[in-house]
Amino acid sequence: MKNKKLLNYSDYLQLNKLLESQSLMSDKNGQKAHDEMLFIIIHQTYELWFKQIIHELDLVGHLFSQKTIDESKVSNAVLKLNRIIEIQKILIDQIRVLETMTAMDFLEFRDYLFPSSGFQSSQFRIIENRLGLHQRDRLSYMNKNYKDAIKDDEKDLVNTSESVKSIFDLLERWLERTPFLSFEGFDFWEKYSESVTTLLKEEENLIRNRPNQSGEELEFNLKSHKNTVSSFQAFLSSEKHEELINKGEKRLSHKATKAALLIFLYRDEPILHSPFNLLSKLMDIDELFTNWRQRHATMVHRMIGGKIGTGGSSGHKYLRSAAQKHKIFSDLSDLSTFFIKRSALPKLPKNIKNSLGYYHQS
Amino acid sequence: MKNKKLLNYSDYLQLNKLLESQSLMSDKNGQKAHDEMLFIIIHQTYELWFKQIIHELDLVGHLFSQKTIDESKVSNAVLKLNRIIEIQKILIDQIRVLETMTAMDFLEFRDYLFPSSGFQSSQFRIIENRLGLHQRDRLSYMNKNYKDAIKDDEKDLVNTSESVKSIFDLLERWLERTPFLSFEGFDFWEKYSESVTTLLKEEENLIRNRPNQSGEELEFNLKSHKNTVSSFQAFLSSEKHEELINKGEKRLSHKATKAALLIFLYRDEPILHSPFNLLSKLMDIDELFTNWRQRHATMVHRMIGGKIGTGGSSGHKYLRSAAQKHKIFSDLSDLSTFFIKRSALPKLPKNIKNSLGYYHQS
Amino acid sequence: MKNKKLLNYSDYLQLNKLLESQSLMSDKNGQKAHDEMLFIIIHQTYELWFKQIIHELDLVGHLFSQKTIDESKVSNAVLKLNRIIEIQKILIDQIRVLETMTAMDFLEFRDYLFPSSGFQSSQFRIIENRLGLHQRDRLSYMNKNYKDAIKDDEKDLVNTSESVKSIFDLLERWLERTPFLSFEGFDFWEKYSESVTTLLKEEENLIRNRPNQSGEELEFNLKSHKNTVSSFQAFLSSEKHEELINKGEKRLSHKATKAALLIFLYRDEPILHSPFNLLSKLMDIDELFTNWRQRHATMVHRMIGGKIGTGGSSGHKYLRSAAQKHKIFSDLSDLSTFFIKRSALPKLPKNIKNSLGYYHQS
Amino acid sequence: MKNKKLLNYSDYLQLNKLLESQSLMSDKNGQKAHDEMLFIIIHQTYELWFKQIIHELDLVGHLFSQKTIDESKVSNAVLKLNRIIEIQKILIDQIRVLETMTAMDFLEFRDYLFPSSGFQSSQFRIIENRLGLHQRDRLSYMNKNYKDAIKDDEKDLVNTSESVKSIFDLLERWLERTPFLSFEGFDFWEKYSESVTTLLKEEENLIRNRPNQSGEELEFNLKSHKNTVSSFQAFLSSEKHEELINKGEKRLSHKATKAALLIFLYRDEPILHSPFNLLSKLMDIDELFTNWRQRHATMVHRMIGGKIGTGGSSGHKYLRSAAQKHKIFSDLSDLSTFFIKRSALPKLPKNIKNSLGYYHQS
Repeated sequence: MKNKKLLNYSDYLQLNKLLESQSLMSDKNGQKAHDEMLFIIIHQTYELWFKQIIHELDLVGHLFSQKTIDESKVSNAVLKLNRIIEIQKILIDQIRVLETMTAMDFLEFRDYLFPSSGFQSSQFRIIENRLGLHQRDRLSYMNKNYKDAIKDDEKDLVNTSESVKSIFDLLERWLERTPFLSFEGFDFWEKYSESVTTLLKEEENLIRNRPNQSGEELEFNLKSHKNTVSSFQAFLSSEKHEELINKGEKRLSHKATKAALLIFLYRDEPILHSPFNLLSKLMDIDELFTNWRQRHATMVHRMIGGKIGTGGSSGHKYLRSAAQKHKIFSDLSDLSTFFIKRSALPKLPKNIKNSLGYYHQS
Repeated sequence: MKNKKLLNYSDYLQLNKLLESQSLMSDKNGQKAHDEMLFIIIHQTYELWFKQIIHELDLVGHLFSQKTIDESKVSNAVLKLNRIIEIQKILIDQIRVLETMTAMDFLEFRDYLFPSSGFQSSQFRIIENRLGLHQRDRLSYMNKNYKDAIKDDEKDLVNTSESVKSIFDLLERWLERTPFLSFEGFDFWEKYSESVTTLLKEEENLIRNRPNQSGEELEFNLKSHKNTVSSFQAFLSSEKHEELINKGEKRLSHKATKAALLIFLYRDEPILHSPFNLLSKLMDIDELFTNWRQRHATMVHRMIGGKIGTGGSSGHKYLRSAAQKHKIFSDLSDLSTFFIKRSALPKLPKNIKNSLGYYHQS
Repeated sequence: MKNKKLLNYSDYLQLNKLLESQSLMSDKNGQKAHDEMLFIIIHQTYELWFKQIIHELDLVGHLFSQKTIDESKVSNAVLKLNRIIEIQKILIDQIRVLETMTAMDFLEFRDYLFPSSGFQSSQFRIIENRLGLHQRDRLSYMNKNYKDAIKDDEKDLVNTSESVKSIFDLLERWLERTPFLSFEGFDFWEKYSESVTTLLKEEENLIRNRPNQSGEELEFNLKSHKNTVSSFQAFLSSEKHEELINKGEKRLSHKATKAALLIFLYRDEPILHSPFNLLSKLMDIDELFTNWRQRHATMVHRMIGGKIGTGGSSGHKYLRSAAQKHKIFSDLSDLSTFFIKRSALPKLPKNIKNSLGYYHQS
Repeated sequence: MKNKKLLNYSDYLQLNKLLESQSLMSDKNGQKAHDEMLFIIIHQTYELWFKQIIHELDLVGHLFSQKTIDESKVSNAVLKLNRIIEIQKILIDQIRVLETMTAMDFLEFRDYLFPSSGFQSSQFRIIENRLGLHQRDRLSYMNKNYKDAIKDDEKDLVNTSESVKSIFDLLERWLERTPFLSFEGFDFWEKYSESVTTLLKEEENLIRNRPNQSGEELEFNLKSHKNTVSSFQAFLSSEKHEELINKGEKRLSHKATKAALLIFLYRDEPILHSPFNLLSKLMDIDELFTNWRQRHATMVHRMIGGKIGTGGSSGHKYLRSAAQKHKIFSDLSDLSTFFIKRSALPKLPKNIKNSLGYYHQS
């Protein structure tokens, strides 16, 4: 009877199931390939981490679906997004483990895997959908919908992940509701536009008066300044922004974009710390998935060269295109184009500043 | 005359000086050893990074020397400490580069370096002092003061770094001044003591009523519970704390310790985010220097085995002892001993909670 | 007089020069920006590491310029290339340090840097040239030659690096001379072609006899198999290979390519260990520079958005294109397309096998 | 019927079992703690990686249990050990993921875990035993044998791992059989002893004739030189070595030690590349486990402070002691104490050198 009810490490982690879930196809085919174990185990750790990422995204989605989103919810979301980031770094670093398997070793069991493929990972698709990957940004898979690759009994979950509000959607709504854009008589956008106009004028003067430049250089610099002016004009105009959205070149609404810019520009204000961290972490997550796809593509290139993937994809080229296209929060990264120097920032009126900050102690 | 005044990358970085500062002793001795270049360059990058760390510590010290330390100063300090952390990771990772030099390759030029040694790095000593390494925690160097190893014209700077207030000192003062310990009728320490007493009582009951335990186990568990009780009692008593400080087992004052505990326990409150991050980053810095010393010791062990260092130290054993002793903020890490569950935390009265938090939007 | 001649750490590393080579432009302009120090120091560490990389490439180039290149030279080269790899990892990781500087902080001093730019790093150009970056693969810089950006007194070194035999050239020559392609009556290429023909035939049968496939799938698979057949045919034919070289789609000569394939396929043979490691390390170096460029581009994107670089380049887009184009050893990575299973590999005749291997002990 | 037999990613990886093996104790107790999911999943990934490490150690053990161990077996073992190293780096890096859980969050479910503990991981014990951790170097667990913590149905596997020959044993036997120690009339140990005697004499002269040294310094340096002499004498004498083994200060037999030294000193010879890599990788594995234990201890310190572990251990202090004691191959790292400069190495006679090396091409 002893220890009957006491929790044991092995039972807690369900190691009996976990450590008996590796069944080598090469073994079943009578040609046991030592390295297939690594192939299975590394993919299993990937899937465990995906489960954890979804667990965190669920919480973040929940926090941002509330009616009132106070500071403490934002900062809790930041902590969870940061956990996703640390997991992503592991996902990337793990590629080095897989790279200890050479192309020749992979060939020993590769044929037995047909036609299974990483494209069939429903958890990864759920992550993409929960974050907010736009369906138009998906690459096609043998001219079919990406969901055709998903096992039937997993399709429901993938469908659900398409239909719930994504982190992108929730972020956009939250940004649009920010109270700071027009706050006790301070109109951020108006002030910002004025500052930009002044700055661009100054910059043009600077270019015209640069010493020692050739005519060619002057022309080059003026032309690039003109481009800057046009891009600011487009940025300031909600109509132009709408056009870009319709063309698929932008995605985040103009109102949300303005709020995001405000957060970036006044990130030194205490009340904007957590919002700033939120935007930063989302950009980090985007970049790390891009980075992961690129590293993955490079590894696949070296492993199978120009061969097609076990699932029929064009191998490393597919992955490299995905790395380019599958970005979700690039509207945020693009914003730094429109940052202006602190010294040129519209000053916040005292009453806002006071209501934003607080003194911790004196 | 053209380009006379235009800034050039090479001039900006003073590359002419920088890239001509590698002079191989083995070359001067007529036995050029290829790998000595690596040895010089890696140490030069270390010293450049040390300069950057000092640059950041100066700013943090400055911020905490002000009369009023508002939220925005604390969060600026956090950003700079985080930069130090990222630099420390590089310092550690760089060891891998040095490890591409084998022990045999090092022997090719090691004798020429005598008696110069990493002990003579005044910048590293300045970092230790600025952070607040206690002089009693220094290991002796051939029974001499660590400053005897420093070049004469660098001694002044090291002396100054001993005499200015260290980050440890400034942190302690800042913590002691926190207004929250007794705030509008809420006495944190009293409430915390009550919670602890209740919790410990409950824990004892739990131990006594555990099913299926042998007498031996019961005894073992009760004994360890008694230890827990004693350590909490010592922690709660300012007299006991004072004794431990006098014995050199603690360093942070009781008042500052209480404030740090409060910050850890209520870190979810918006106003405590930056203070919590500040404490975390300082612990990180401490750990990373420990980690660096350990990795360094391991590398030296493998490189020179049990030989003494070029500067006469006992090599890797010295470094390993330093890794154990040279901790500055361990009083903070120790605090988690005294954390209690959120559900057992004294509830903050509504008026405090409101004055702490703010709603970002609704 | 004491210690007059004894070497001191500080003098050995020339710290007086090194630590006084940071002069902030923002300071000179009366607007000292704290973070400019980081900007300078990180670039200085980059340049120090570049110097070390060149130091290693010089040695590798020297080793492969010898008349006789024995095993021990190859393995020495592998060690040095591996050191470059470890340095590259640091170059990449250091970006994280720079990322602790936000876009807003950069704006504080960015204008003062004009028109200096990382494009002006002559050491980086030398590294590219020494490795063997083809001049046609360079992106243009404001429609000018990349060397126009280099300071006059540094142009000679860059020119020299263009004219000496690059690592690519030396590798190609070394591969072409490998004695194994035709060795005591064993003609590798003939045997390999036979194996490939058999394998492709088997694969086609497999596709035709797969159970449960739709007509559409069969067609898709046959078509992709046909592509595989064509690419093998092109690979086997030296004329086709020559054509691809003329079109700029391949670079490595057919003879060298065959030797490289042999090394990859028979890498388990002791005598081919070092040659295999050599090829692997060169691919690693290529990948890590690609990785570095991609990370750099991502960071620049976030730092300056769509703005043009201080040197007038199109910023992050330039860097991303460079990451795609500036590959040197992709002919090696492509080779895995043509790997075949160990079980299908032509067996080496006993006499070759014996002359390749040796028993360490019994 | 369609797709009935086609392999699917999800089935291949047995994701149905894998992704349903996370059952939160806090949930069962009606107090679901969000972060317990992370705690479970990270430990599950650890156990999956442990399985992979055992898979590799089994192969390495098999390779070194053969009668004849040719070069190709040694180099295969090196590849697999290198894979273990890459996995260890992941084990260490994963700690960063766990650190995103704060001490307060851990307290939310910590009590529910009692008395399960990482001490109960039988796979980790198997790894220690397979590598060759000496039973006398184990720390006791509540004054009991480490196996008392292991679940009954897992004890057999742990017992077996104690009784089979460990990697340490197999390495020692392999080293003892090396044919090079006495090879065609060249007696390595005799020649090495002569070189050492000469070198030590020279060093003493150097010390006595150093300019500008004080009497104190001379005395200090002579004393440390004397220590060096004694340690070399002990090293050269097989009797002294035997004594140290009996005292438990050394473990590797004198004969094996001599062979290991030879491999280190002549690592540039082609035939010794793989043996050298073998020794290096084993030292790496040792260091990385030490590193992992230290990082683990630091994290535990921060997470639970001075509290005892859930399994009843003394928490971070236990882990830190284990990091110090649980070393397996330190006899190899210690060897660099006895390295001598290449220029002082006994020259190999030409006939040995020729039989060792080979020319790859001319």
